Amino acid sequence: MWGVELQRQSEVSLKRQIYRMLRDRILNGKLPAGEALPSTRELAEALKVSRNTVNEAYEMLIVEGFVLSRQGAPTRVAEGLRLEKIAEPALQKEEVPAPAFRADFRTGQPDLQHFPRYQWQQILQKTFKEMPSTEFGYSGPQGLPRLREEIAAWLYRSKGLAVDARDIFITAGATQALHLVAGLLHKEGKKILIEDPCNIGILQTFLHKGYPIAPIPVDEQGLRTEYLNGKEACAVYVTPSHQFPLGGILPAGRRAALIRFARENGLYIMEDDYDSEFRYYGDPVAPLYAMDPGRVIYVGTFSKVLFPALRIGYVILPGALHERWRSLRTYTDVQNPPFEQAALAEFLHTRKLDRHIGKMKKVYGERRQVLLSTLKEYFGDAWSLWGDAAGLHLAIAFPGLRFDDAFMIGSRQNGIRVTPVDHHSIRKGEHANKLLLGYGHLKPDEIRKGIALLHRFMNYKNE
Amino acid sequence: MWGVELQRQSEVSLKRQIYRMLRDRILNGKLPAGEALPSTRELAEALKVSRNTVNEAYEMLIVEGFVLSRQGAPTRVAEGLRLEKIAEPALQKEEVPAPAFRADFRTGQPDLQHFPRYQWQQILQKTFKEMPSTEFGYSGPQGLPRLREEIAAWLYRSKGLAVDARDIFITAGATQALHLVAGLLHKEGKKILIEDPCNIGILQTFLHKGYPIAPIPVDEQGLRTEYLNGKEACAVYVTPSHQFPLGGILPAGRRAALIRFARENGLYIMEDDYDSEFRYYGDPVAPLYAMDPGRVIYVGTFSKVLFPALRIGYVILPGALHERWRSLRTYTDVQNPPFEQAALAEFLHTRKLDRHIGKMKKVYGERRQVLLSTLKEYFGDAWSLWGDAAGLHLAIAFPGLRFDDAFMIGSRQNGIRVTPVDHHSIRKGEHANKLLLGYGHLKPDEIRKGIALLHRFMNYKNE
Repeated sequence: MWGVELQRQSEVSLKRQIYRMLRDRILNGKLPAGEALPSTRELAEALKVSRNTVNEAYEMLIVEGFVLSRQGAPTRVAEGLRLEKIAEPALQKEEVPAPAFRADFRTGQPDLQHFPRYQWQQILQKTFKEMPSTEFGYSGPQGLPRLREEIAAWLYRSKGLAVDARDIFITAGATQALHLVAGLLHKEGKKILIEDPCNIGILQTFLHKGYPIAPIPVDEQGLRTEYLNGKEACAVYVTPSHQFPLGGILPAGRRAALIRFARENGLYIMEDDYDSEFRYYGDPVAPLYAMDPGRVIYVGTFSKVLFPALRIGYVILPGALHERWRSLRTYTDVQNPPFEQAALAEFLHTRKLDRHIGKMKKVYGERRQVLLSTLKEYFGDAWSLWGDAAGLHLAIAFPGLRFDDAFMIGSRQNGIRVTPVDHHSIRKGEHANKLLLGYGHLKPDEIRKGIALLHRFMNYKNE
Repeated sequence: MWGVELQRQSEVSLKRQIYRMLRDRILNGKLPAGEALPSTRELAEALKVSRNTVNEAYEMLIVEGFVLSRQGAPTRVAEGLRLEKIAEPALQKEEVPAPAFRADFRTGQPDLQHFPRYQWQQILQKTFKEMPSTEFGYSGPQGLPRLREEIAAWLYRSKGLAVDARDIFITAGATQALHLVAGLLHKEGKKILIEDPCNIGILQTFLHKGYPIAPIPVDEQGLRTEYLNGKEACAVYVTPSHQFPLGGILPAGRRAALIRFARENGLYIMEDDYDSEFRYYGDPVAPLYAMDPGRVIYVGTFSKVLFPALRIGYVILPGALHERWRSLRTYTDVQNPPFEQAALAEFLHTRKLDRHIGKMKKVYGERRQVLLSTLKEYFGDAWSLWGDAAGLHLAIAFPGLRFDDAFMIGSRQNGIRVTPVDHHSIRKGEHANKLLLGYGHLKPDEIRKGIALLHRFMNYKNE
């Protein structure tokens, strides 16, 4: 009758195997409504298991309402349980693995080899051991107070920025910070004004929330503030310290104009400071935030100065937004895990971050020089450099050439990952002659080999 | 002229102090547009610093566009930089500290003392050491493959659930999972159908996304599926294994009806399985997911079986939703940190989770018994128990009494944290005679003391 072989070596218990067999037959109609199950003795004998095992399987079916049991009567299948079997359509489920590139000039990728992994491990261990057991529960949507205090102290000593630790809110990286800030600032029918070109990922973050955006053009100095006037907006997104991707430093005059625009229109400015720690001549540029902490929401991240997997960023919020932020974060994903927060606090406290940044500025600065001189060697004077000497990528223009998504795809097919600026443009065309070359993660040799490949590919293309 | 004292012991460099002093005077108009800065020699003498320090400060002002410098001419303040000083309104910025309770029956709080912290630390250390350096970068929105495989294996051995690891997506906890799933399923003008009462936090998660919801009544068996018919909906949210808060196990007949409703209306079911691992008599209830993996999105979490600070949950998604999920997660917060993921994978692989759950079922089961007998001792037969013997809280009814938010506030003022079921109700009133008592985190003594306090308070209230 049962024609079923129980798997005696399986990790699934025998009672659960019997339960599943019966449940499946009930659902597919082989055991119809009202049908009596065999007695436990009978089924135990047929399946060669103990009667107790069958009893437990029946108990599971009873608890979940698949069968009804009445004292003295046989256990019968409940009504209305038959479900058509629907096969899930076969789909390609694999994540497409990233192809291997012979030249990988992707942007936003810090070096992962120079990170003091052993030091971090020691700190992680120490802070884990010392963590109060309450922090294994829910420790609140704002982030650990000791991390917020260490970030405030670090911003003061590294950028001269005076920030109250109570205005700092820890996030799971800059993307989440902007995702949440956009949620706080969104007003029905009003747009988010955004630099064009801008990081396409950030643009997607706003678009995924369904918020309307309007592009504001960017030139070699950053956002062209004269285009702000008259716009009905709820927020402005800017990268004033090092415009992504073109590299400009927003000059004081435009900063003042931007703040006046925000004040006059009662809106907030999102300042995304994604990599200004790495400036190769002179000190880091002062954040826009310093000019008006009541109107500017500063977004910082440790993905570039440490490593992306840390998933720690932060926002500095005006007091008027604190309560709504706490509520929004709580109902979005509650809080960051405390372990990385505690380790980062200690890493900051012991000035290891300052030393790491100092070291990486040298490493990245040298790579930048290698990239510049190799470009000169291969492309002569056919190109020109855009933007400030900062960050982990170059923006370069080749007057007369045009790079588009087709160029990007073609280069990829040749094993070269390189991004046209237009990939990050909202209105395509204006910056079509510019390319982005990320170099932070590349060794000098890889840079030289990569540019040689790019040169060969571009010559081939232009023939 | 300058009347300024430089802080020679400060962590802020002298050049940055000079830069800030000049910048502030430019912004507040004390140094108006066109005004010439003193020569570097002059200012260096006045401030008793090296000329080079002043030079560097001027360089910062030039780079940021506060002043304009021309060869042979004095450095002058740029145009249009004056900004009115706006003081931020003084606000209460402190997070209100949670009051200390003499009796704390909050729900959803696992025990944090019995967690094998030392074991976890060893595993964290081992997996950190072994982690490939690529995982310090971006490792993808779906989560580490080895964790997904371990979760699939654990679901199979513990719940008999056969799941393809490629259908599992790691999240930063169940709240984030539901936040993202709601985003995937939302359709303009259609409602999310939700159990009433339900976890108020989950309700808030949907409401914070701006999605319309409609309550479906719950009885002692869970969702009353007869109320589904005719509803224009995009999704249904249910807790079929252990309804929150009332504790019912959704019977097979209603499960089949729910799945038929989803199929006929082309919508998905969100199954929130928040604590079914802890069932004190018999095996865990089988997930609804087993009945139709194409229509049910299963949401699981490790916050209750391990500890909330882990911030790891997961969803099991039909293939049709994979691509959109990856995109949504990428543009929401990119990914989970890999460190906790790797440790959890190892904790699962070595069966430590199975053992921990076995141990905690005993601990929690005993606490549940203590709570039941203490209730009996103090309240006699004035109350009755609702729901299955599972999870970390009791729902009890006191026929004839009414508990509302005022009762909750009053009890809190008396040092007792206890939640009326109505706190979680969308339409108030129907379950006004029921209370929730979380016991997972309480030692037997704390339970006895807490019930004594509650009894005294309730008698006082009723006098």
